[in-house]
Amino acid sequence: MKSLTFTKGHGTRNDFVIIADRHGMVPVTAAEVRFLCDRRGGIGADGLLRVTMAGQMPDWDGPKDLWFMDYRNADGSIAEMCGNGLRVFARYLMENDLVEVAEHFDVATRAGVRRIWPQLDGTIRTSMGRVGVAQGPVTVSTTQGSWAATQVDVGNPHAVVVLDEQVSLAELDLSRAPEVPAEAYPQGANVEFVEVLDERHIRMRVHERGSGETMSCGTGTVAAAAAHARLTGLGDGEVRVDVPGGTLRVGLAEGEATLCGPAVLVARGEAMLPDNL
Amino acid sequence: MKSLTFTKGHGTRNDFVIIADRHGMVPVTAAEVRFLCDRRGGIGADGLLRVTMAGQMPDWDGPKDLWFMDYRNADGSIAEMCGNGLRVFARYLMENDLVEVAEHFDVATRAGVRRIWPQLDGTIRTSMGRVGVAQGPVTVSTTQGSWAATQVDVGNPHAVVVLDEQVSLAELDLSRAPEVPAEAYPQGANVEFVEVLDERHIRMRVHERGSGETMSCGTGTVAAAAAHARLTGLGDGEVRVDVPGGTLRVGLAEGEATLCGPAVLVARGEAMLPDNL
Repeated sequence: MKSLTFTKGHGTRNDFVIIADRHGMVPVTAAEVRFLCDRRGGIGADGLLRVTMAGQMPDWDGPKDLWFMDYRNADGSIAEMCGNGLRVFARYLMENDLVEVAEHFDVATRAGVRRIWPQLDGTIRTSMGRVGVAQGPVTVSTTQGSWAATQVDVGNPHAVVVLDEQVSLAELDLSRAPEVPAEAYPQGANVEFVEVLDERHIRMRVHERGSGETMSCGTGTVAAAAAHARLTGLGDGEVRVDVPGGTLRVGLAEGEATLCGPAVLVARGEAMLPDNL
Repeated sequence: MKSLTFTKGHGTRNDFVIIADRHGMVPVTAAEVRFLCDRRGGIGADGLLRVTMAGQMPDWDGPKDLWFMDYRNADGSIAEMCGNGLRVFARYLMENDLVEVAEHFDVATRAGVRRIWPQLDGTIRTSMGRVGVAQGPVTVSTTQGSWAATQVDVGNPHAVVVLDEQVSLAELDLSRAPEVPAEAYPQGANVEFVEVLDERHIRMRVHERGSGETMSCGTGTVAAAAAHARLTGLGDGEVRVDVPGGTLRVGLAEGEATLCGPAVLVARGEAMLPDNL
């Protein structure tokens, strides 16, 4: 029987199994990821974060001495980035004394280097890269109606709907994927539905491509804040975004975004993998 | 920060967090149970098994030197028994050398003493107590139709429907609770829907009172096998029952039932409880 040392943590209820692998000696297979992320037959999580060194990643051409976030979806597939996962990854590095925490430190991801700023209140701010907001609306439809949406690119594609009085956020049925126009989104999109609470305070629900409705989506939060800022002419600054799993804060400055929120580790131990994986 | 040593395991995908507490020094609170069973914010499970000595339980009047299964639902409430949990509890005792494994050993539960027989193939057989099958049918209804059902008492109340050609097991919509007659079931019932595959082989899905559809239900499996045996005049012996989470075997003999199936431990470690629980 193979056993793997793991940690479990979450950021706004987006949860992760973390596997430490400094020397690239624990190349978890897709079947092992599926087992570890299986909520009933294994430990259970939305995804897995392998903690390794950038120099261990064959395709990495940046600084080799950074910690690398090797993110996997629960189905075992590889993904570029995960905003909530990045904070949990940073928390893991800090709690295990794997980084020197000054004002900030950097982490390598498949989407490039990301900067981490630990906050005095215990939350963690991360850089989220460039945000592109398209001119002109696209149309998003569900069984409950059709809406004009803002097309936003945060490394992955988003469609942001600011709800009118037609349907409230609570009444929205996200049990099926909203329809987005194929010409604007050849690979589909994550769709955010937003209610504006105040000039710099919005509330949203999100349907993630391939996952369904989730408790929280880091890039979706950034997309929603950026679309809201564009539509209202708000300009740069901070927007508070309430998601079903908690509260996040998006910073917007000159086309770049940061995301700030909680990240906690809740368990650590040994997973005992079945022989027939 | 309080930390708790835990083990996680499952039987036919009915999963449990196990807390060792021989001396009754870890009286987990309802809030702690909810945290530990929270699939995103904690570890995640259908329920919690506290492993203590029968002599530590104030209401116990049986042998004091037995291990006692203190079962809690995921919402923190206390429950009498859990058939799949009992096998996982037994596996925990065996893997941690807490019992002398001869042909069998006994475990104390709120429903009384239960006998455990480890099997050579790695499965575990447990006694499930008396099974009462009522004369005369009751009626169960869903949005898809109404059926005659057999009323079975396995310590908790069950209604067993053997499906006809009206609706197949796969087509059945169990997203809402089936209706059972209030005069027969003043506290509601678990409802099992059965397809007969062979004389001694059935397949079922179950809607559990208060939980919705589940992957497996130990007492429900026993109820389904007993109803099938009564309706077909099968008599005593063994019935194989396929549930969504795996396969179980029910033994019926002179009004008493046993349940046999897999039970595995998949992880162990330390849970770090938040201070504000």
